[in-house]
Amino acid sequence: MSKTGSVEERDLVNKLWDAGFAAMRAPASGGATKRPLPDVLAGNGKLYLAIEVKSTRQDHIYIDNEKITNLIEFSKIFGATPYVGAKFIRQPWRFIKLEDLHVTRSNNYRVNTDLAFSKGLDFEEITGGTKQTKLV
Amino acid sequence: MSKTGSVEERDLVNKLWDAGFAAMRAPASGGATKRPLPDVLAGNGKLYLAIEVKSTRQDHIYIDNEKITNLIEFSKIFGATPYVGAKFIRQPWRFIKLEDLHVTRSNNYRVNTDLAFSKGLDFEEITGGTKQTKLV
Repeated sequence: MSKTGSVEERDLVNKLWDAGFAAMRAPASGGATKRPLPDVLAGNGKLYLAIEVKSTRQDHIYIDNEKITNLIEFSKIFGATPYVGAKFIRQPWRFIKLEDLHVTRSNNYRVNTDLAFSKGLDFEEITGGTKQTKLV
Repeated sequence: MSKTGSVEERDLVNKLWDAGFAAMRAPASGGATKRPLPDVLAGNGKLYLAIEVKSTRQDHIYIDNEKITNLIEFSKIFGATPYVGAKFIRQPWRFIKLEDLHVTRSNNYRVNTDLAFSKGLDFEEITGGTKQTKLV
């Protein structure tokens, strides 16, 4: 796990607690058990969220097929809604539903900023908070 | 965290996966965030379990007041049922509801084997599985 990824995961965990969720990061990878764990797991008694976190200084992220397969498996068993949590530098968090991920030719997944900010959801939308809408 | 505790936690996590739950251990203590995390968190879409794990070679365990306070807080926010998971050496797991813990004079908590095997529940009972009952 990259240092950056770790910082962003902690940031997301803190935001979730502040939003009324109890949230936990998965143990550091390389542990004894090879289970399909999401990076962040959160619940508030109504919503349960399983999030694979990706942060980047570029304008796109790649996610391995295996990570998404694992996220689907964990979420299905646990009873949680799966998202890819994308943190582009100097941008707010975006959360992408798995069906909205772009499938690459090598059968992995890619999310660019356009996708993240069009089909992706913001923090308030996935936590059931009030979405700030611009007055037009 | 003691080595023994860690081994027992992994054992419990494996048992939970085998019983149809998705389960995760909390990150190792001493992390950056000081949140009230249970040792093990598990869900199967219907039941959500937050478990504080204690193992011992003696006939009783002690649990700090703060641990229980944290377990209550996490479970209430997350939406999980809290248990103390007690593993006495060469005995099966027992799970004690927080209201059944013995309060010590110093306002901490104690569970001995008598309590664990009278008021405590077995693995099948907390996971909604079929309890093996002896034919009398």
